[in-house]
Amino acid sequence: LNIEDQNLLLAAAYVSDAQYNRNVPFETSPRAIRLYYFYNHWTMQVAIYFFICVDLSLALFEEPALFPLPFLATSLAEVLCLTAFFGRLVHFAKVTPQMVFWKDMKNICIMVTIVLTLIDLIIYGSLEAVNVHSVRWSRALRPVFLINFPESRQIRRTFRSIRNTLPDILYVFLLFMFSVLIFSLMALKLFGDRGLKTVEGLPYFTNILDIVFELYVLVTTANSPDVMMPAYNFNWWYCLYFITYTIINTYIFMSVFLAVVYNNYRKHLKNEIRKLAYLKRHKMIEAFNILKVKVGTEFVVTEAQWRRLAKVVAPHISSPHLELLLRISDEGQKGHVDKVSFLRLADLLNIQVVTINIRRHPLEDWMPQVYRSSASLLVQRMVRHRIFVWVYDVIILINAIFIALDERNPFISYAEWLFLSLYIIEILLKLYTYEPRAYFGRRQFWNCLASVLPCGFPWAASRFYPRFRVIVTTLINIGPTILTFGGLVLVVYYVFAIIGMEAFHGKVRFSDPNFTSPDALVCGNPALKDSAFARDRYCKNNFNDLASSFIVLMELTVVNQWLTHSLGPGFPVTWTSANALYLFLFPSIFIAFILEAFFVAYSLEKSEVETAIEKKIQELGVGIQEEEMQDGMLVDNVDAKDSGFSGDDGDNKRKDLKGLYFRIASKKYRTVDALLQQMFESEIAPEEEGPSLDEILNFSPGDLYPKNPNFENSA
Amino acid sequence: LNIEDQNLLLAAAYVSDAQYNRNVPFETSPRAIRLYYFYNHWTMQVAIYFFICVDLSLALFEEPALFPLPFLATSLAEVLCLTAFFGRLVHFAKVTPQMVFWKDMKNICIMVTIVLTLIDLIIYGSLEAVNVHSVRWSRALRPVFLINFPESRQIRRTFRSIRNTLPDILYVFLLFMFSVLIFSLMALKLFGDRGLKTVEGLPYFTNILDIVFELYVLVTTANSPDVMMPAYNFNWWYCLYFITYTIINTYIFMSVFLAVVYNNYRKHLKNEIRKLAYLKRHKMIEAFNILKVKVGTEFVVTEAQWRRLAKVVAPHISSPHLELLLRISDEGQKGHVDKVSFLRLADLLNIQVVTINIRRHPLEDWMPQVYRSSASLLVQRMVRHRIFVWVYDVIILINAIFIALDERNPFISYAEWLFLSLYIIEILLKLYTYEPRAYFGRRQFWNCLASVLPCGFPWAASRFYPRFRVIVTTLINIGPTILTFGGLVLVVYYVFAIIGMEAFHGKVRFSDPNFTSPDALVCGNPALKDSAFARDRYCKNNFNDLASSFIVLMELTVVNQWLTHSLGPGFPVTWTSANALYLFLFPSIFIAFILEAFFVAYSLEKSEVETAIEKKIQELGVGIQEEEMQDGMLVDNVDAKDSGFSGDDGDNKRKDLKGLYFRIASKKYRTVDALLQQMFESEIAPEEEGPSLDEILNFSPGDLYPKNPNFENSA
Repeated sequence: LNIEDQNLLLAAAYVSDAQYNRNVPFETSPRAIRLYYFYNHWTMQVAIYFFICVDLSLALFEEPALFPLPFLATSLAEVLCLTAFFGRLVHFAKVTPQMVFWKDMKNICIMVTIVLTLIDLIIYGSLEAVNVHSVRWSRALRPVFLINFPESRQIRRTFRSIRNTLPDILYVFLLFMFSVLIFSLMALKLFGDRGLKTVEGLPYFTNILDIVFELYVLVTTANSPDVMMPAYNFNWWYCLYFITYTIINTYIFMSVFLAVVYNNYRKHLKNEIRKLAYLKRHKMIEAFNILKVKVGTEFVVTEAQWRRLAKVVAPHISSPHLELLLRISDEGQKGHVDKVSFLRLADLLNIQVVTINIRRHPLEDWMPQVYRSSASLLVQRMVRHRIFVWVYDVIILINAIFIALDERNPFISYAEWLFLSLYIIEILLKLYTYEPRAYFGRRQFWNCLASVLPCGFPWAASRFYPRFRVIVTTLINIGPTILTFGGLVLVVYYVFAIIGMEAFHGKVRFSDPNFTSPDALVCGNPALKDSAFARDRYCKNNFNDLASSFIVLMELTVVNQWLTHSLGPGFPVTWTSANALYLFLFPSIFIAFILEAFFVAYSLEKSEVETAIEKKIQELGVGIQEEEMQDGMLVDNVDAKDSGFSGDDGDNKRKDLKGLYFRIASKKYRTVDALLQQMFESEIAPEEEGPSLDEILNFSPGDLYPKNPNFENSA
Repeated sequence: LNIEDQNLLLAAAYVSDAQYNRNVPFETSPRAIRLYYFYNHWTMQVAIYFFICVDLSLALFEEPALFPLPFLATSLAEVLCLTAFFGRLVHFAKVTPQMVFWKDMKNICIMVTIVLTLIDLIIYGSLEAVNVHSVRWSRALRPVFLINFPESRQIRRTFRSIRNTLPDILYVFLLFMFSVLIFSLMALKLFGDRGLKTVEGLPYFTNILDIVFELYVLVTTANSPDVMMPAYNFNWWYCLYFITYTIINTYIFMSVFLAVVYNNYRKHLKNEIRKLAYLKRHKMIEAFNILKVKVGTEFVVTEAQWRRLAKVVAPHISSPHLELLLRISDEGQKGHVDKVSFLRLADLLNIQVVTINIRRHPLEDWMPQVYRSSASLLVQRMVRHRIFVWVYDVIILINAIFIALDERNPFISYAEWLFLSLYIIEILLKLYTYEPRAYFGRRQFWNCLASVLPCGFPWAASRFYPRFRVIVTTLINIGPTILTFGGLVLVVYYVFAIIGMEAFHGKVRFSDPNFTSPDALVCGNPALKDSAFARDRYCKNNFNDLASSFIVLMELTVVNQWLTHSLGPGFPVTWTSANALYLFLFPSIFIAFILEAFFVAYSLEKSEVETAIEKKIQELGVGIQEEEMQDGMLVDNVDAKDSGFSGDDGDNKRKDLKGLYFRIASKKYRTVDALLQQMFESEIAPEEEGPSLDEILNFSPGDLYPKNPNFENSA
């Protein structure tokens, strides 16, 4: 490899990092760069995620197991995973400078966890060999691998945002607990001496701890109005106490809680994303500095170099697409790309441009006379008409009602056949009207297919999609964000589940619900006799294996109300207190996520880069409106349009693009992160170099305000 | 009255309208202006609110009554109220132009309601005379008076915001109901044929309507995990169905719901407030045009006219305060006020400026030797030290623990005396240190006093105020907003309560809870035998009088979970469906309110006008920092400062202000509306005239975006 090729590889590595938001500092020696390419290769990433999955799912096979495997098998699998993790770490150490590697807590974390796991495996294995049963404590550390590998930076960032939000939340939580405490004291004074009884005949509000617990549950409104009734039955005026309590502690405090969480969460998230935006700019400038040559008074990148770079960064890019990007980057067609345009390259590559080969309907080629006859055209116009869609919506609705009715009625099973044939007719008609390849590639077809299947009714719901476009697209937009959140939940649940399994395994046992032996009725634990837990048949809510533990934690997350029923000696009462903060925090942050996603989705239009691309596509006359695509009007329009390049282009370029149409892949499906990042990027002036790398990494949320006065203005 | 006085009155009316955000178009004839002044007089406003209160509270005395009064008495009171309302309307008609009066739906509404109420009274009265019992339906119309009088414009505006938000919410709600329906169908298919039984032994998920209801309740998490257990006990995998359901319908949909409500609510609220800002500007320009005279090339208002105007608008303004405002308005002391400064007058008058007479501690005057002795100074420094506050915080905490302990213990009742004396010592020490009048006027004193009272412990909580300053001040800020919301709730509850009383009165009767006759156990209604409603002793949740009805509605608002227990024939099942939308809407809008309040409070600093005043106060050297006030350091600082005016002022002015100190009344206590309005005002350029009156009144939220690009940017 000559020096120029090496430079190109290095620049491409920077651009690729900018494109995928990777923030790994790597050595610039030729060998390190090649190792870095290998490190970022998708097979390596898939492999590491595979091993993480295997490692995490080992808990399904270890005692207490859902599918038991011998200790030897699971420990071998675990050692294999640890080897893979260690190998990955060594690979990373070869790529990154030594200083950076040893200063990074993530790497230290992984190494310590590997060592601890090995120690635990050896101790547990040797004790097992002499038949002493001990605790596999290192299993609770497994999520460390999921969090700490550089690929999980989304999860890490969310963790960081939550951790930074905690101090402010703690203040609100303290204030809230203080308020509950004061109300409890008042309750004791008001009701303690009146000898009131609950419906069960127990003394009412006589013990301060009971009161605190009952009032805490009242915040979730789970025991409303039962908790109020004895006092209310005694005296009308006492209800005012409970109304005041509910207004203050349920409505106002929960709202304040949400507001504080949301405000802090978004502040920290924005800071993180601003960092990303500046880091990206930083990397693009590095890449530019490697490739720049002086033309006239300014530094630029030549067209040839630019093409080679783009080919290295995105090897699978089609040549018309590349041509399009070059036309956008080299606006004046001067044969080189200036700095400002070059810095946009990573964004340009991130925008999915769909190239479409327009084809006529095959029937039109085979028998144009018939296909273009007035009867045939009428059928096509009918199928394309929106009334056609409505008619089929009504048919689906009737089908739904029929499904809800009794299936054993023979008339209804006949009707199922009728519906099936109607759906097949729909598919055939659409195949006749639309170009088949275009039709098969679209959502529409899959919907139709789904609605033909007997279980397909729920999917037919997506047909109603156009009516709720904004909401549904926003929901799809925030899908990736919710997945990140799912990763977070997994980590927390996993640790809790492992601990729960070690502590409470076998305390509660489940038997077949129809089995009425005395043992089955108390969940196999005599201590649960007469408890509400056993009476309500909650025996399956136990920590006997990983899956059951996850369900219990899920239920606790949704609402801890049922704990009021189930405080039996066999059950982990201690969870309640640990759960208190967690219960408030989790849903709040989740709501903050979604709120933020919605606001960003509402307020943002097309990004500046996308607009540039779209403008160019329109200028070149090779654009297609998304609406045309959706309505299947494509073929009709193609004939009327001049599909080639116009203006001063050479004929060769014109040929390249002929018959091809571009459009920006649906601008509706974007992640919140991408949207936020665009917002910040639009605030960095095109020629601005940005602060130094160290400054960027030390950004704090406080810096946000003076720098972006408009940004935080009214939010 | 000469023409100039009349003009002054007219201009003052405009300024006053701008100051209080009144939007009543009034005739400009001298008689109409005088009537308008009378119309806006506080006694008239108090009188009309008094009659509205009387009218609304009549429901407490009418059958079914909490405190029964004969029909003659209540109907006489009602006729009196109606006369007052009619009188107010006639007064309004004399003030406003005929055209405006008859085009305003509010006035028509009031008139129609008055006529309908009279008709109802006559019919009911005559039927009662012949002993036929009929329905007093017009009582449900009474909130019309509360809503439609011009004074209730806050409530009306909130109503309007909610109404405008409804269509968007409806879409989300439809989508949500659709999702619940589809999940219900899936549940029927999955579980319907398996012969599962609930804990009570009833068939599980066999009827589509039951399923829809159960799943709807599951959204509130009230029946979680009970609703899942039979299926989960049968097969582990079925829990995935419920988990999916909870994630989609509880978390995601509720978040989307909140996001849509919040987004729409704030959009419409901002539009309303933008209207207000422009109307205010419009009125100030009218006032300026009346008073302007030409000086040189520009139109101005002379200093004498300005003084007279301010005196008419704010008769109780102190002359140092007036002097200060003039100094701010006439920056260059040219003897006249220019247009831009004049337009700020309403804002200037709205800013509370506190004038403080600094006095020494009386003891210092009486016996300076003793008071300034080193021992005395040590005591004073001690009391001012923060450790002193902390010590008393700890004492209060110990007191709280003692209160929570058993009161009958003699040791503890002795301790109460100890605490009382400690509190009295605190008050005496503080009186010795701080100037008494300053001390009595402050929150601090009332806190101390409250903590001395036996019931005072809750109030002592406010002592912890400094630690949670941001949260608490924001909560206080949004107090007025919550009150508006309270008015709204009152209106809705009142209508529902009246209808509920007519429909369900006497269906459920409450007896003493210790009374165990068969009749008392079924709430006096045999149909409730064996119902969960009677078993849980819910008999007092009935519609037998206004107060009870309000409690029932409150409970339904908090959570409709208990309806699952209480679906008995005696109980209004129909409420459930009516409640569905209401239940989602109410808390969402409430949370939207509070979120908005928090974000505005977080993002806004001092307004431009306030800054101008503060700057002037500082320039004149008569300012006092709020912190100094709070720490009681006032007296110490006064000696060191030159308290007079400095610079080129005449001695007479200097005398006016001597010994007086100003500060802006705590900038922390402001309503959200005021803050939002300031945001918009800062966007109207000082010299801008704004659009015409008609244009202003027809603003739509859509206009908001192009006009205020920065404002909606990132929100």
